[in-house]
Amino acid sequence: MIEGGVTAAKGYVANALSCGIKKPTATRLDLALVYSTEPTTSAGTFTTNRVRAACVRVSQSHLRRGNVRAIIANSGNANACTGAGGVAVARKECSIVARQLGLKTAEVAVCSTGVIGLPMPMMRIEPRIPELCSDLSAAKGHDVASAIITSDTREKEVAVEVVIEGKPVRVGSCCKGAGMISPCMATMICLICTDAGVAREDLDATVREGVSLSFNRITIDGDMSTNDTTLVLANGASGVNLSPAHPEWGKFVEALHFVMMEQARHIVQDGERVTKFVTVRVVGAPSPQEAKRVAEGVAKSALVKSSWNGGDPNWGRIIHAVGYSGRRVREEKVDIDIAGLPACRGGEQTDTPSDDLRDRVQAREFEVLINLNMGADEYVVYTTDLSPEYVDFNRSEYAYWNQAKRDGLTK
Amino acid sequence: MIEGGVTAAKGYVANALSCGIKKPTATRLDLALVYSTEPTTSAGTFTTNRVRAACVRVSQSHLRRGNVRAIIANSGNANACTGAGGVAVARKECSIVARQLGLKTAEVAVCSTGVIGLPMPMMRIEPRIPELCSDLSAAKGHDVASAIITSDTREKEVAVEVVIEGKPVRVGSCCKGAGMISPCMATMICLICTDAGVAREDLDATVREGVSLSFNRITIDGDMSTNDTTLVLANGASGVNLSPAHPEWGKFVEALHFVMMEQARHIVQDGERVTKFVTVRVVGAPSPQEAKRVAEGVAKSALVKSSWNGGDPNWGRIIHAVGYSGRRVREEKVDIDIAGLPACRGGEQTDTPSDDLRDRVQAREFEVLINLNMGADEYVVYTTDLSPEYVDFNRSEYAYWNQAKRDGLTK
Repeated sequence: MIEGGVTAAKGYVANALSCGIKKPTATRLDLALVYSTEPTTSAGTFTTNRVRAACVRVSQSHLRRGNVRAIIANSGNANACTGAGGVAVARKECSIVARQLGLKTAEVAVCSTGVIGLPMPMMRIEPRIPELCSDLSAAKGHDVASAIITSDTREKEVAVEVVIEGKPVRVGSCCKGAGMISPCMATMICLICTDAGVAREDLDATVREGVSLSFNRITIDGDMSTNDTTLVLANGASGVNLSPAHPEWGKFVEALHFVMMEQARHIVQDGERVTKFVTVRVVGAPSPQEAKRVAEGVAKSALVKSSWNGGDPNWGRIIHAVGYSGRRVREEKVDIDIAGLPACRGGEQTDTPSDDLRDRVQAREFEVLINLNMGADEYVVYTTDLSPEYVDFNRSEYAYWNQAKRDGLTK
Repeated sequence: MIEGGVTAAKGYVANALSCGIKKPTATRLDLALVYSTEPTTSAGTFTTNRVRAACVRVSQSHLRRGNVRAIIANSGNANACTGAGGVAVARKECSIVARQLGLKTAEVAVCSTGVIGLPMPMMRIEPRIPELCSDLSAAKGHDVASAIITSDTREKEVAVEVVIEGKPVRVGSCCKGAGMISPCMATMICLICTDAGVAREDLDATVREGVSLSFNRITIDGDMSTNDTTLVLANGASGVNLSPAHPEWGKFVEALHFVMMEQARHIVQDGERVTKFVTVRVVGAPSPQEAKRVAEGVAKSALVKSSWNGGDPNWGRIIHAVGYSGRRVREEKVDIDIAGLPACRGGEQTDTPSDDLRDRVQAREFEVLINLNMGADEYVVYTTDLSPEYVDFNRSEYAYWNQAKRDGLTK
């Protein structure tokens, strides 16, 4: 791991501005641009929600047509459920950026995150895009990390360097996400820029694999967003060109997947008003699907998550979630370890003193290990507790939404 | 609707005692018996959780072997995840009751609700069963309703009378359930006794239909329990024998289903620390499965439920849950009405003033109507908000669990 974020790798520059998308008077950064000074290959994964934000539709379409070299991103408005008008706005953002940078419109991707259902305040964004594109610098990566966060309590940046062919190759990233987090992505945006040179199809394959091991394994509240986006650019500026046939390909894959997994952990650790990072590991499953169903079922159970919030080692609630999530589970075979101690064997309580179990789950991080004892398949999900404060935090966006309308932020 | 509960119909008697199953010193009723003085036919539905309580296993087995005429029920301990010992205990309860009442063991069903994973305190229950069986009375129906509740804030009794062949026919019931409520039943027990005479297979069919329209349509927290049980006894004491060929069969079915639906409503309305009763109705779906998926997805979304708690008419969160729950949903076709007002048309916001929407969702009960505009299939789910107090209430059973262990309540 090295210092730096999305511009840590060679050949990437960035800028961010405060446009007042969130609040007319705010000085918080809310519009950002990342640009590769060299041509790139690129890959992306997006929400599988049937309700997709306009920016997701446009970015998907641009990625299908070729490689993306610049990304414009904003927070404060998700440009979701905004109809044909929202799509036109997202396209327009890309086309103005393209004109400024001398690119084709399809070489620009767009990401938005924020409130659903309000039109984008283009009157505030459009006039600022030339400025956004004119003062680009590799030193402004951190500003991008700041500009894309919403309810996050901190910027999320991860960068690593590996040496391949004796040369430094870097993968830098920034990420946002704290609520509406569910497997198959979430209200998350992750921008990853590497100076490795990688053919598009190879990049695509390894990005998909990395997402399946990281962002698709996390859940905070079980809600999948309309805007989830991971975009990866590779520009070859390190002078190292890689492919799966390259003897050091594994080093690059490891670096890329490490960045994704670290960012996934950051999202869970920064979950809205939550207090625990819990690894739910299911082993001994009769099929990969059964392992996944059980792990996700436990990780999404409101009752299990509430008990974790209370520091309660309640294996009874865990096994009840195992029972309703699995299709082939056999109660009398189920073993559960909590934070390394046996809590349940063969579907019944163990002799482990309950005070010992309770002491272990006071920790900020622990693992719940569920052995179905029916096979060799495994799955792991990273999740959080459910806190009264989470619910309270999410009780109402109404005041904010209504204020945005009154402020004329919707045109 | 008439006064009375589970003994409202002719030929049913009951008793309830305080055995200290919950707390050694408590005076709260926690052990109950319902008995038909006449032979019965019977039907039941049980949890589909792969982890089933010992009492569920035993009651299912008894029902398969014939008709049930007596039900012993307790609160305070669920007799779940208690292994072979738990099953032996449940069988023993039935056999002692049977001996006292001159029945076969398989003519007795057993229901338990309470904490999962602790052995039943048979040393407290067994010596009291003769007393439980000896002082039976039709006047004690309400005591049964009291004895089976746990975190419920009130007894749940519903009884109706219809006139068939000029004679009064009654359906009486009591029910418990307030948390761990999910479609396909929940930590709920519903005991229904009618004095109609109905052949076993006809009773079974109409009970299954009734459950699918009521208890399988409710969700509070999306968690399905290990103990859910609905038992229906029919003893013919009204002098009226019914079958689907009878011209007044529909009256009986209506009465039975009304009782189930009212009890399902009572469970949702008494949801642990919740404040709203929300009907989620999906129409215009391209298939019954899609209608169900979407309705249940919205009803289970932590973000949607949190917004209801805040009185926030957040249609954006609703459509995002529609999008991740449905498989064939088309965003641009989705209409959403909240409490009778159009909130979303064709996937976009309407002109309905947001203050008007907000005012409507301040009500204790309202309907969310989602039209997918893709077909003619419908589904409805009854649910609640998610409150900070719900999470707080469910943070820890540890103190209770540990106290129960220390009190020697587990032997």
